[in-house]
This record gives sequence, structure tokens and C-alpha cells, in this order.
Amino acid sequence: MTDAPTEILHATQCALCEHGYADLTMQDIADETDLSKASIHYHYDCKHDLLLAFLDHLYERFEERIDDPDGETPAERLCALVDSIVTERSDAPAFQTALLEIKAQSPYDEAFRERLQRFDDAYVEAVREIVEAGVADGSFREGVDPDVVASFLATFVNGVQTRHVGVGHPLDESAEAVHTYIDETLLVESSTGNATGSSGGVEIGGASE
Amino acid sequence: MTDAPTEILHATQCALCEHGYADLTMQDIADETDLSKASIHYHYDCKHDLLLAFLDHLYERFEERIDDPDGETPAERLCALVDSIVTERSDAPAFQTALLEIKAQSPYDEAFRERLQRFDDAYVEAVREIVEAGVADGSFREGVDPDVVASFLATFVNGVQTRHVGVGHPLDESAEAVHTYIDETLLVESSTGNATGSSGGVEIGGASE
Repeated sequence: MTDAPTEILHATQCALCEHGYADLTMQDIADETDLSKASIHYHYDCKHDLLLAFLDHLYERFEERIDDPDGETPAERLCALVDSIVTERSDAPAFQTALLEIKAQSPYDEAFRERLQRFDDAYVEAVREIVEAGVADGSFREGVDPDVVASFLATFVNGVQTRHVGVGHPLDESAEAVHTYIDETLLVESSTGNATGSSGGVEIGGASE
Repeated sequence: MTDAPTEILHATQCALCEHGYADLTMQDIADETDLSKASIHYHYDCKHDLLLAFLDHLYERFEERIDDPDGETPAERLCALVDSIVTERSDAPAFQTALLEIKAQSPYDEAFRERLQRFDDAYVEAVREIVEAGVADGSFREGVDPDVVASFLATFVNGVQTRHVGVGHPLDESAEAVHTYIDETLLVESSTGNATGSSGGVEIGGASE
């Protein structure tokens, strides 16, 4: 038995997938639950408040997902971190699209902007820490700047989502491209020794669910 | 004296900046011209037709912008190509936001999707040709795969736009990050010899207008 706020947040995700962000109504969300529209309003004043709570809920899941990625070496951990965002997600394509709509609202909505900034900061910091560890243990090249690489990869993963929604570019190809980047730009000893990158030999964590 | 379709397409850009994609009406577009809503309907049946014509118009400008980038060497030409998309654009932030909204509609709109695919294909091909030239003249590393690099940079520039709209990440920092990538991952002889990338010494074409 889930409590009402949890049920509502889950219903929000379903309703976003079905109706998108722009057309979403409180009634659409109520229709995904056993609750009335009035009882949803009891918990959340308006659609905007509910969406902010939903973004906070997503952020908690995001933090768990990027926390302590699998792998022995910094390179493996960095690959796993990228995969956790790029390929290993169960979100329906429609949900990715709704998230892009929310990002597009960000310039007009300071509260959205603050939430999105938290995701960005957390991801940048998670990458930065791993890259720093790689430089410290000597597996990444000495001159690699963890801040620069972290920002670079944060921009790239934004692009993965947008290009996937916009033109359907496959997520696993994007993940492979990042693995190649890590191998050839960061590692002292590249496992391929060159920049072919399209050998198909890079292990990619399978997309789950 | 501009003809009516040209005036209407120009007005569409202004109206998109002001109202965004979701709320845009034919009346909003008419309000940006000396024309009546009826005369806009004479040229374009509906908002969707007008937006498709507008995307075709943008594509023509895009083709001109990415055609024959400045520079002597492949590396210089690749930097110029990236800058032409990332920093040297006169678009208002609101217009970037509207474009992101249109990308978010793409999964639900085959005609939008086809247009966006043309932009993607043209950009990928422009990058691919320059990287191929760099490998051929020996300035880029032998093992660099032009297809892999072209797709990587296409994903990255999608991310530049999204991260700029979503959290206001500065466009010139994104351009600098790509210059560093070109320098350290593609070039046989890196001009810096390491991966600091944050020296601030990379020339970035000034954002025009």
C-alpha cells in the first residue's frame, strides 16, 4: 500500500508520458490514480507545485543512480556512470520527451531552473571525482583537467537525450562514443591504441528493462 | 520591400521568441506583420504548415552557415564549423528555447522529424568531410574514424543547446571544450601537449550580433 503522495508522483510520470508536459492537467494525473482531483489538490496546490515535487522525487532517484558506480578502475567507473544515465534507464521515450519540454521551460521558470541545476551540479561532481581519482592513481593522463572533462561529459549527456528525442539517434551508439572518448582521451594507455572507436568491442552495460 | 512569405517567416521567428512554440497562434504571427491573419492563411493553411516552411527556411540558412568554414588547416576549419553553430549565432535565447520545444515534438510529428534529420545529416556530413581531410593530410591521427567523430560532435552540439537552455551553461565554455577535444583527441601534435584545456588561450570566434 503506497501513500497518496507517492501514488501521485508515480501517476505524474505516467501522465507526462501520455500527455506530455504542455497539455498535462491535474485531471490527467488524477485519472492515473484511484484518487479524485480534489484529493490531489489537497496534497499539491497546483500543477506547478506538483511538478516541482516530481522533479525533487526524480532527483532523489538520480542521486541513487549515479552514486558509487560499478567498476574496479576509474575508467570502468566512469563508463558505468555514463551508462547509468545514457542506456540503463527504464524511462519510456515519451518521458524523455516530457523532460525535454521541462528543460525548454527552464528559462521562464526559476524554480524549474533551480531543480535542473541540481541535476547538472550532481552529475558534474560525480564525473569530476572519478576523473580526479584516475589522475591520482596514474591511469588517466597527467594533464587531464577533471573540471573540464566533467563539464564536457555533462554537455554530452544532455546532447544524448536531445538527439535521441529529436532524431532518434540510438542511445547505445552514444554510450559507445563516450567509452571511446574515455579510452582515447583520458587513459594513459588506450586499450585500442588508436581512435577507430567503431570496433564494437567496447563493453556497454546492457540497457535494462 | 520583402514579399509576403519572407515577411511571414521572419515574423514567425519573432513570434516564436515571444510566445514559445506551444502557445503560438497564427494571430501572434500576424501581429508581427502588416498582414491580416487571413492573408497569412492564404499562404499557409495552418500553423503546422507554416512551421514546416519555417524549418525549411532555417535549414537553408543553416546550410549556408556550415558551408566552407574559415581556416587553413582541417583543425582550424573544424573549430570554425563548431563555432558557427555554437557561438556565432544571433538567435535570442528565447528562440533557442523554441527550437528545443520543436525538438521535443519530433517523436509525435513525422514531418518535424524529417526536417530535424536533415539538419543532423548535414552537420554530421560537414564534420565528417573535414575530419577525413585531416586524416588524409596527416594532421589528424591515423586511427581517427571520421564517422565516429562526426556523430560524437553532432551529439555534443545538441547538448550545448540543451544545457544552455536548461541551466544557462555558457556557450563560449562549450566551444572552448570542443576546441580542447579537437586539439587533444584528433591532432597528431597537440598544441598544448596535455589536457588542461582551461588555459583560456583557445581562440573562439566572437559571438556576432
